[in-house]
Amino acid sequence: MDNLLTVFVSEIVGTAMLLLLGGGVVANVILAKNKGFGGGFLMINFGWGLAVFAGVTVAYASGAHLNPAVTIGLVTSGLTEFAPGVAVSVTSVLLYWAAQLIGAFIGAVIVFLAYKKHFDEEPDAGTKLAVFSTGPAIRSYGWNTFTEIVGTFVLVFVVIGFGRAEPAGLAALGALPVALLVVGIGASLGGPTGYAINPARDLGPRIAHALLPIKGKGSSDWSYSWVPVVGPLIGGAIAGVAATALLPVL
Amino acid sequence: MDNLLTVFVSEIVGTAMLLLLGGGVVANVILAKNKGFGGGFLMINFGWGLAVFAGVTVAYASGAHLNPAVTIGLVTSGLTEFAPGVAVSVTSVLLYWAAQLIGAFIGAVIVFLAYKKHFDEEPDAGTKLAVFSTGPAIRSYGWNTFTEIVGTFVLVFVVIGFGRAEPAGLAALGALPVALLVVGIGASLGGPTGYAINPARDLGPRIAHALLPIKGKGSSDWSYSWVPVVGPLIGGAIAGVAATALLPVL
Amino acid sequence: MDNLLTVFVSEIVGTAMLLLLGGGVVANVILAKNKGFGGGFLMINFGWGLAVFAGVTVAYASGAHLNPAVTIGLVTSGLTEFAPGVAVSVTSVLLYWAAQLIGAFIGAVIVFLAYKKHFDEEPDAGTKLAVFSTGPAIRSYGWNTFTEIVGTFVLVFVVIGFGRAEPAGLAALGALPVALLVVGIGASLGGPTGYAINPARDLGPRIAHALLPIKGKGSSDWSYSWVPVVGPLIGGAIAGVAATALLPVL
Amino acid sequence: MDNLLTVFVSEIVGTAMLLLLGGGVVANVILAKNKGFGGGFLMINFGWGLAVFAGVTVAYASGAHLNPAVTIGLVTSGLTEFAPGVAVSVTSVLLYWAAQLIGAFIGAVIVFLAYKKHFDEEPDAGTKLAVFSTGPAIRSYGWNTFTEIVGTFVLVFVVIGFGRAEPAGLAALGALPVALLVVGIGASLGGPTGYAINPARDLGPRIAHALLPIKGKGSSDWSYSWVPVVGPLIGGAIAGVAATALLPVL
Repeated sequence: MDNLLTVFVSEIVGTAMLLLLGGGVVANVILAKNKGFGGGFLMINFGWGLAVFAGVTVAYASGAHLNPAVTIGLVTSGLTEFAPGVAVSVTSVLLYWAAQLIGAFIGAVIVFLAYKKHFDEEPDAGTKLAVFSTGPAIRSYGWNTFTEIVGTFVLVFVVIGFGRAEPAGLAALGALPVALLVVGIGASLGGPTGYAINPARDLGPRIAHALLPIKGKGSSDWSYSWVPVVGPLIGGAIAGVAATALLPVL
Repeated sequence: MDNLLTVFVSEIVGTAMLLLLGGGVVANVILAKNKGFGGGFLMINFGWGLAVFAGVTVAYASGAHLNPAVTIGLVTSGLTEFAPGVAVSVTSVLLYWAAQLIGAFIGAVIVFLAYKKHFDEEPDAGTKLAVFSTGPAIRSYGWNTFTEIVGTFVLVFVVIGFGRAEPAGLAALGALPVALLVVGIGASLGGPTGYAINPARDLGPRIAHALLPIKGKGSSDWSYSWVPVVGPLIGGAIAGVAATALLPVL
Repeated sequence: MDNLLTVFVSEIVGTAMLLLLGGGVVANVILAKNKGFGGGFLMINFGWGLAVFAGVTVAYASGAHLNPAVTIGLVTSGLTEFAPGVAVSVTSVLLYWAAQLIGAFIGAVIVFLAYKKHFDEEPDAGTKLAVFSTGPAIRSYGWNTFTEIVGTFVLVFVVIGFGRAEPAGLAALGALPVALLVVGIGASLGGPTGYAINPARDLGPRIAHALLPIKGKGSSDWSYSWVPVVGPLIGGAIAGVAATALLPVL
Repeated sequence: MDNLLTVFVSEIVGTAMLLLLGGGVVANVILAKNKGFGGGFLMINFGWGLAVFAGVTVAYASGAHLNPAVTIGLVTSGLTEFAPGVAVSVTSVLLYWAAQLIGAFIGAVIVFLAYKKHFDEEPDAGTKLAVFSTGPAIRSYGWNTFTEIVGTFVLVFVVIGFGRAEPAGLAALGALPVALLVVGIGASLGGPTGYAINPARDLGPRIAHALLPIKGKGSSDWSYSWVPVVGPLIGGAIAGVAATALLPVL
């Protein structure tokens, strides 16, 4: 039980850190009057990548999934233990998912507070929502889901590859490889949907958007909300299976 | 035979990953309505570098050439074994080349699907081709070929240098050094031709462009297609020879 | 006493290096006629991150705090020794703080000299001050302080996390992790206040601005000056306590 | 004698690689019709940093100075041997300097050839020179020299710091730390003079500019040419002395 509490707290802390820095860079680039206003998509890519860097660093005790799609991908890849003393089971998967969602919610709330005056000054409701959750460049539920599947597949497949390519060597790099990977996925596959590639990253902040007293806020766009949940879960699950077939243990 | 199958699959997987993220960043930056639209050349450089990072990571079983010019350069540098149990021979070289071409084709097809709606909305046929294959800024077959020779020379020469400079140390960095190198080659030598520096990276997607049912597509520009094949092969072969002369084994 | 002198000099050297490169990138991007003029916020983020990289590298003898908020956060996290032979005490804390302030002052003076002709050519007094010290995008002492608390919390919390996540592994990366972290904090939380996240970084240069004979200079904005001192000290102190609770020693 | 020949060749190869990628990124960003045209100063900073990464990687046999200011700084820091069997002496210093100048010349010539068509299309003579050598944003020989002294001081001082901070750990990073350092120096101190911070990097290409048959070329600006030679030599020499005083051997 102690171990379960440890991983629960660890996933909350890591995912809150992820969303604080990830939501923060979006706020900085798109909300009125910020010093980083108009900083561009590459700045957002680096911001999210370094958000992963910080979040993964502080969530070492749980293996730093921070993402339900990573958790499910590790399950389908055949992992038997998430952390010392924490076996893979329906209970532990649900525990990770709950922690990730709670953490993402908390991170989004802190972003709102850190950028409070800029939310107040921003006239556009859609821009406010975009700080919290992703939305499609061209709305098309089928194609948007496919793009999210592909992006998340790359994330989970390569993360599993890190562990098989140079286990000892890459461990010395800590959270750097996955951070760089997320910079790359954002730059390369983030164009059509804004790369949620993580159900908690999208759903937690969307709930926060719905609940928070944001001045002049509009719709939380619930009609799109299932895409960045379903797509990443499918992509992560496929990646785990594909890794078993395509990434040999040497 | 098992080893040959392993390296064959590994090169397909790695090169498909390379093209998925490499072609993806170009699509994001140049196709209409993308969130990364207009992100600039440095974003493309980072995108391709991180595509190499992901592709090399998952192709550890074959030594991660992902590029016929790297394969030929390793041959001219005097390598005798590509991977455990896979001796350098005409057969194994052709096997690597075939896998690289197949992988590049697959990666390009997935880019097309991930950006399907943006291909549909993009009015310019030349822009669509540019997501798949390189083209010259100023068409001049001789000078364009020379620029590709230089860029590929740098790639293969420095990659061999990685193995001789700090063999134990740099191994701990996994795919990071070659990823950074490709960011640098793109920024520094990518201006005139868009830095194919890899025959498979250019030819595989060009074949995909010719075959795929892309709305409003134009010519696949076959008259230029030999330049990013011949130039890189020459550059890689020279680099292998030059490394033997100029990079001492300490 | 020898040890105290060593850490005193080390903190001065490191913080001077930090401010030289940190103030320098701001000067390059915002002062008239520079080659980097208009380079954007991401360039400033990388510049400050690499300033941390250089500063931390040369201040190895003192543990490279370079920041009173880091010093206080290490105290509240329960550290007992700052460096070999230098116990945590009121005296040693004050010694670190004094050295950091002196170093930041020196670094700012050298920036002024390196960019002397550009200060002369710059017409706007507010732009000149911005090379030295931070200022809010939207002035609101309460919210600005909160944003500085959050940014500094992230800095100190994750820095402590580096030491607990992969102690042996990450040490091999030297100053790289904290440099990347500062790039990320700047991109993600720097929008509202310009991320002082370090009392010495802001106050030392502000004193330099007040004392230096800068052509056409205006106010040093002392009414804001307490925000980037108090906010970071609070954020760092909280981070040390939070790390004790949330970052388990495995 | 064998050892002297080895380091001579190594410095030529490394400095040629440095200038090929360093000059190349400038050509890409400023010469007409390039795909990287207008890519900005941060792209130039990354390009030069990664040029250092590639050049240092392939010059491992000589210790990879690639810069007369580094050579002189190592002398004033008290180094007694540049490489195994190569003692510090007037002869060996001159050998390093000659190789660096030759390498820089060669690299600049290859840049010219790789970008030949773009030199032909570029109408502005000053822009052509800027691909080869640095020039001041505001001409003022005294202040320009000072800025070059400061930039080179940082380079040599921190490089010596790398060797003292975490000798074993940082060695595993190969050429990465010095590459990042040069990105940072460029972003932070490159505004006024374009950061030669290396006499060979500036003088070798300037000679190439004077000798090559560049269409429509103008003056090689010899009146400024001593600044990026004298400034860096002074800065490097001071850094070696300062390192002895300020960077303790633990």
